Amino acid sequence: MDEQELIRAITTEVLRRLGGGAAPAAKIPVGVSARHCHLCPEHVTALFGPGQELTPRAPLYQPGQFAAEQTVTLVGPRGILERVRVLGPTRPRSQVEVALTDAIRLGVRPSISDGSDLTGTAPIVLVGPAGVVHLHEGLILAWRHIHLSPREAEYWGVKHHDVVRVELPGPRGLTLNNVLVRVSPDFIAQMHIDTDEANAAGITCDLEVEIAR
Amino acid sequence: MDEQELIRAITTEVLRRLGGGAAPAAKIPVGVSARHCHLCPEHVTALFGPGQELTPRAPLYQPGQFAAEQTVTLVGPRGILERVRVLGPTRPRSQVEVALTDAIRLGVRPSISDGSDLTGTAPIVLVGPAGVVHLHEGLILAWRHIHLSPREAEYWGVKHHDVVRVELPGPRGLTLNNVLVRVSPDFIAQMHIDTDEANAAGITCDLEVEIAR
Repeated sequence: MDEQELIRAITTEVLRRLGGGAAPAAKIPVGVSARHCHLCPEHVTALFGPGQELTPRAPLYQPGQFAAEQTVTLVGPRGILERVRVLGPTRPRSQVEVALTDAIRLGVRPSISDGSDLTGTAPIVLVGPAGVVHLHEGLILAWRHIHLSPREAEYWGVKHHDVVRVELPGPRGLTLNNVLVRVSPDFIAQMHIDTDEANAAGITCDLEVEIAR
Repeated sequence: MDEQELIRAITTEVLRRLGGGAAPAAKIPVGVSARHCHLCPEHVTALFGPGQELTPRAPLYQPGQFAAEQTVTLVGPRGILERVRVLGPTRPRSQVEVALTDAIRLGVRPSISDGSDLTGTAPIVLVGPAGVVHLHEGLILAWRHIHLSPREAEYWGVKHHDVVRVELPGPRGLTLNNVLVRVSPDFIAQMHIDTDEANAAGITCDLEVEIAR
């Protein structure tokens, strides 16, 4: 997170706590999610050793979320991906999010998911310094989505689980036609796309977008 | 190339030679270009040895073009990409086309180009079994484009160097807003996108599209 993002994150968090939800902004910042995993407490122990906990390395834009110092190696039937960042805090179920380009390197074919139901999603092997976890399901391609607070959702005229369109500008400009809206008091406005989507559009890191009306 | 594609390629080529340009089809097939390079004759010699020529391995969809048996390793300041396919026949200037995800692995930042002018494009090192070529310019991200014969261009109501929109369907559906039209009697209708674009849209290999009116 650079200084600009940090200032924005702190400002928005202060406003959120004062006002019960971030004040709606005229534009929605874009966050590019590189491949990463969320781990349950049992898997943190299995991968990093007894008594080990996730160590925050940098706060993420969404309040309370962080990139951990820990990384894992993903092992698929056709290839591996090293130094895959673990995000915190821990979750009830482990979940690994990759781009389709990553999946092809691994030799797996995950489906698109919003992470709410991991049943039947693809398997993957995670290797850490203290052990191995064979995840029988939980590897997904994240459904491109927009986080909004309830106030922001009201401002944009959308509700939880709406599917909207968002235009990405530039020489490789494209319009994302199926963007999932996710609304929660814990969120602040941000669109999450993966590295394939960001690279296909050739977007720069300070991009802000609008929901197409 | 699978059987279906082969039948289509042969049929279209026969029609093209009989009629001076492919008969317009109601849909345009999509070809996904993985990273690849085009080489000049001097670089074929430098990389594969004196007297060596590109050996066709499989015909491509565009008439006369082929994937060669030969591959090279691309070496950038931050990483390498092995087994990068060489396409034939040779060209007057060598040119390497990668997706932005590939470029990030290599540690280079190529610009978007239609390949017509390589002046000022990014450098890259190619390594073959017989030698090394330091390409001072020629590494590009290909501008997404549609090949059309003159008859097909007329059918679609577009001309050489027009920029059009194309919608890709599906759960990761998106609209490509800046697609370059390239018209030549040597072409048959096909849209070329790179692996980032294909993976961002999650498209399947038998996709056919239309130019948005």
